[in-house]
Amino acid sequence: YKLFRWFSAKQCALPTPKMTENGLGHREKVLNMNTMNPNVKRVEYAVRGPIVQRAVQIEKELKEGVKKPFSEVIKANIGDAHAMGQKPITFFRQVVALCAYPDLLEDNKFPDDAKNRARRILQSCGGGSLGAYSASTGIEVIRQDVARYIEKRDGGIPSNPDNIYLSTGASDAIVTMLKLLTSGEGKTRSGVMISIPQYPLYSAALAELAAVQISYYLDEDKCWGLDVSELRRAVEAAREHCKPRALCIINPGNPTGQVQSRQCIEDVIRFAAEERLFLMADEVYQDNVYAEGCQFHSFKKVLFEMGPEYSNTVELASFHSTSKCYMGECGFRGGYMEVINMDPQVKLQLTKLVSVRLCPPIPGQVLLDLVVNPPRPDEPSYATFIKERTANLEILAEKAKLTEQIFNTVSGIRCNPVQGAMYTFPLPYSSYSNHGYVIRAMCSHHPLSLGFGQRDGTHHFRMTILPATEKLKIVLENIRAFHKRFTEEFS
Amino acid sequence: YKLFRWFSAKQCALPTPKMTENGLGHREKVLNMNTMNPNVKRVEYAVRGPIVQRAVQIEKELKEGVKKPFSEVIKANIGDAHAMGQKPITFFRQVVALCAYPDLLEDNKFPDDAKNRARRILQSCGGGSLGAYSASTGIEVIRQDVARYIEKRDGGIPSNPDNIYLSTGASDAIVTMLKLLTSGEGKTRSGVMISIPQYPLYSAALAELAAVQISYYLDEDKCWGLDVSELRRAVEAAREHCKPRALCIINPGNPTGQVQSRQCIEDVIRFAAEERLFLMADEVYQDNVYAEGCQFHSFKKVLFEMGPEYSNTVELASFHSTSKCYMGECGFRGGYMEVINMDPQVKLQLTKLVSVRLCPPIPGQVLLDLVVNPPRPDEPSYATFIKERTANLEILAEKAKLTEQIFNTVSGIRCNPVQGAMYTFPLPYSSYSNHGYVIRAMCSHHPLSLGFGQRDGTHHFRMTILPATEKLKIVLENIRAFHKRFTEEFS
Ligand SMILES: Cc1ncc(COP(=O)(O)O)c(C=O)c1O
Ligand SMILES: Cc1ncc(COP(=O)(O)O)c(C=O)c1O
Repeated sequence: YKLFRWFSAKQCALPTPKMTENGLGHREKVLNMNTMNPNVKRVEYAVRGPIVQRAVQIEKELKEGVKKPFSEVIKANIGDAHAMGQKPITFFRQVVALCAYPDLLEDNKFPDDAKNRARRILQSCGGGSLGAYSASTGIEVIRQDVARYIEKRDGGIPSNPDNIYLSTGASDAIVTMLKLLTSGEGKTRSGVMISIPQYPLYSAALAELAAVQISYYLDEDKCWGLDVSELRRAVEAAREHCKPRALCIINPGNPTGQVQSRQCIEDVIRFAAEERLFLMADEVYQDNVYAEGCQFHSFKKVLFEMGPEYSNTVELASFHSTSKCYMGECGFRGGYMEVINMDPQVKLQLTKLVSVRLCPPIPGQVLLDLVVNPPRPDEPSYATFIKERTANLEILAEKAKLTEQIFNTVSGIRCNPVQGAMYTFPLPYSSYSNHGYVIRAMCSHHPLSLGFGQRDGTHHFRMTILPATEKLKIVLENIRAFHKRFTEEFS
Repeated sequence: YKLFRWFSAKQCALPTPKMTENGLGHREKVLNMNTMNPNVKRVEYAVRGPIVQRAVQIEKELKEGVKKPFSEVIKANIGDAHAMGQKPITFFRQVVALCAYPDLLEDNKFPDDAKNRARRILQSCGGGSLGAYSASTGIEVIRQDVARYIEKRDGGIPSNPDNIYLSTGASDAIVTMLKLLTSGEGKTRSGVMISIPQYPLYSAALAELAAVQISYYLDEDKCWGLDVSELRRAVEAAREHCKPRALCIINPGNPTGQVQSRQCIEDVIRFAAEERLFLMADEVYQDNVYAEGCQFHSFKKVLFEMGPEYSNTVELASFHSTSKCYMGECGFRGGYMEVINMDPQVKLQLTKLVSVRLCPPIPGQVLLDLVVNPPRPDEPSYATFIKERTANLEILAEKAKLTEQIFNTVSGIRCNPVQGAMYTFPLPYSSYSNHGYVIRAMCSHHPLSLGFGQRDGTHHFRMTILPATEKLKIVLENIRAFHKRFTEEFS
């Protein structure tokens, strides 16, 4: 495999949009940049921006036979496990196929537990078909299964299916909650605290809603940890110009890969209670914990273990998804949120709001059901399921370690351990702009990602640990070589 | 089958939400009705409101063995064909199953065309899996297939895949377009024209966006036709307090079932051009045309046939979905929009905006691909496909006629022909409020729907034509009996 080739800045130019004019098109458009929703204009979303577009272009050129010094673009830009070769869990897909085409229920190639699961799900679908709309909050038996899953995960702390809202991926539920939380004008405008670095869905949704983003910084020196004194600094500064209403936490973290300690979660909950903030816990990476000594603690569980003073008052929405963990089923767009201590009238409003879009996709609901209700030890598919799940998680853990190790041998790149999630967020020391760095790195074949936010003057990029191990090694070696050349060129 | 039983007003009481308080819950919530997004509060959405909740309750009671004078709730409240017993198209579901569980590609029970289709789709998915995210605008080959489908439908008028955006049902694309179109404050706030009666997604989305709803009335006396003079009246009145920017048309109509003539569409396009309005054409019922002499004309086709003065200037977004027509695959949440003459910079903004939510569900994209690219005459599944499609459409046509016929024999109920779509919107003459009417009717087992808007002083309700023919007859006979009793009681 040929290692990286250096590209000139010109060769790295990003595609510019074609602005074709038709003959009569000089008349001003009704919908143009001046009349368009100004909040949309303010939305920034670099993860799928020009760098990815350039990568797609390069891939196309390769397919068309354009000669390049490499034969493949290795994408390390989004948390999309299947796209990088991870295989789906057999049982999950068997059940989806059975539900989609119930004639297969007569087929003896499918195990009985898969068939039973499919029959149970179809019975709770309108007309016994995946093609019917469900209740807007999701299919009732699936919401019950979710509640039972949460109870089991959290050591028996009760979960009520009435608090479960199924969603179109976690994205959908997160945006819906932020929407509910947005109100006021000027200095009473809602402020929402998000970490920097962050997952850019949050900043994008806040821009679109014209809510105020209150940034708090994670501490790179403490393994991207969260410190309550930084939360306090941020909220106090924000009080000058908005009304802080919510605090968003991503744990395990994207793009930073840290896993929060139980103590830290307790501190955050206490802070939210004191400052009267609605808590949003994004826990889509809850199974993605690799580092020794780290463990996933759900906000719900910690909240309830803190006693009634907290568990009866602090308002919490937590989010989960089919997209990450060991299953990586992003394309199905399955997810749920659990709301705790939500005002019952607001809950009715939430139900009304989700009704307008009818319902989350049923295949995604089915997949979510399988995630929360996988084969049991006494069922025929159990052994294979465990084998596949374990293998997927072990490979991720191995790649997390590999990434950290290699990066830390590159002089001039600093990289925290990947405790969890699927990303590393290294800091190349360089005086050149971060945008330039990533574009140039990308042109040596690796789409990396920008747009997560960071402290001024630093130029991190995000890289997933998802490429297959051999390819990941190539990527890391390429970045090492690239970084060396880049540093020589610009110093 | 026992005909309707009369319920007292008390027996018909709708469920009121439980407002449980916990011991320590007296502290005011962070998120309550006063701090919640006021736009959300303004959203009205009755279609899935208390009447449907009551129906679900009754169904549950029946399941639990509670004695009622009937054994089943026949739902005629939402356009959900599978829930009412319509069967999925075999070929579509075969391909979905093959894509979900590609081991089946080795199975000789599946026809070759289904396998080829599945292989082609999987090749265009990341990692060959439905579990990967796609491009945010949708899988490229599917967008190409959509463009070819539109070209064929519209007699060769070109369609560019770059103008196609796949979506999570049509709902998603409609809301996204309305979002782009919303700007300004006070008297410069965007106004959007929608029909009354309307499909309540529109009013709900406008309320949520705090855009101005400009109502134009359909003419019940002219078979719910649309008259340009009424459009003009509405837009002129609206100019006093907002900036009219867009005109939404639903054709064939929901809830009114009318099909627009070619002439009418031309008039509407000319009006939009004169008044400088962005056109939104909701064409999700494009295959649902039953009445003799009626035909579906796409706005795109008529626009292009009107010549370059229009086809090069009028901005148009048209919407389609997997949810209706002969397939009725609502649960998959598949859909697309085609944009014509959109400002290229706005298009980039649109692409950015849809990127935030990552991508529409892949199984829905697959289903959409099959709708726009069904079996061809030379393929093994063609005969069955045509048979199933024809049967579904013929049964709908039959039920459309039946509904109109029976309603028009009921004295005191007036009902236009159901030319297309899946609904009738009859007018019971009565002095009692419409809400009361439907609730009482519902308690004699039929969830009908409210919330579509109508002229003041009239009390229409919407009923789908989707129950199986025998059941539809029962529903209609029940309504006849109910109406008689109701009229006696309240006159
Ligand atoms: C932290 C975090 N939250 C939410 C999401 C949204 O995932 P989805 O909408 O696919 O469930 C992602 C996806 O990458 C994520 O990283
Ligand atoms: C007129 C109209 N438009 C749009 C929709 C939305 O359909 P979906 O989001 O399922 O594609 C419906 C659904 O009933 C409808 O009747």
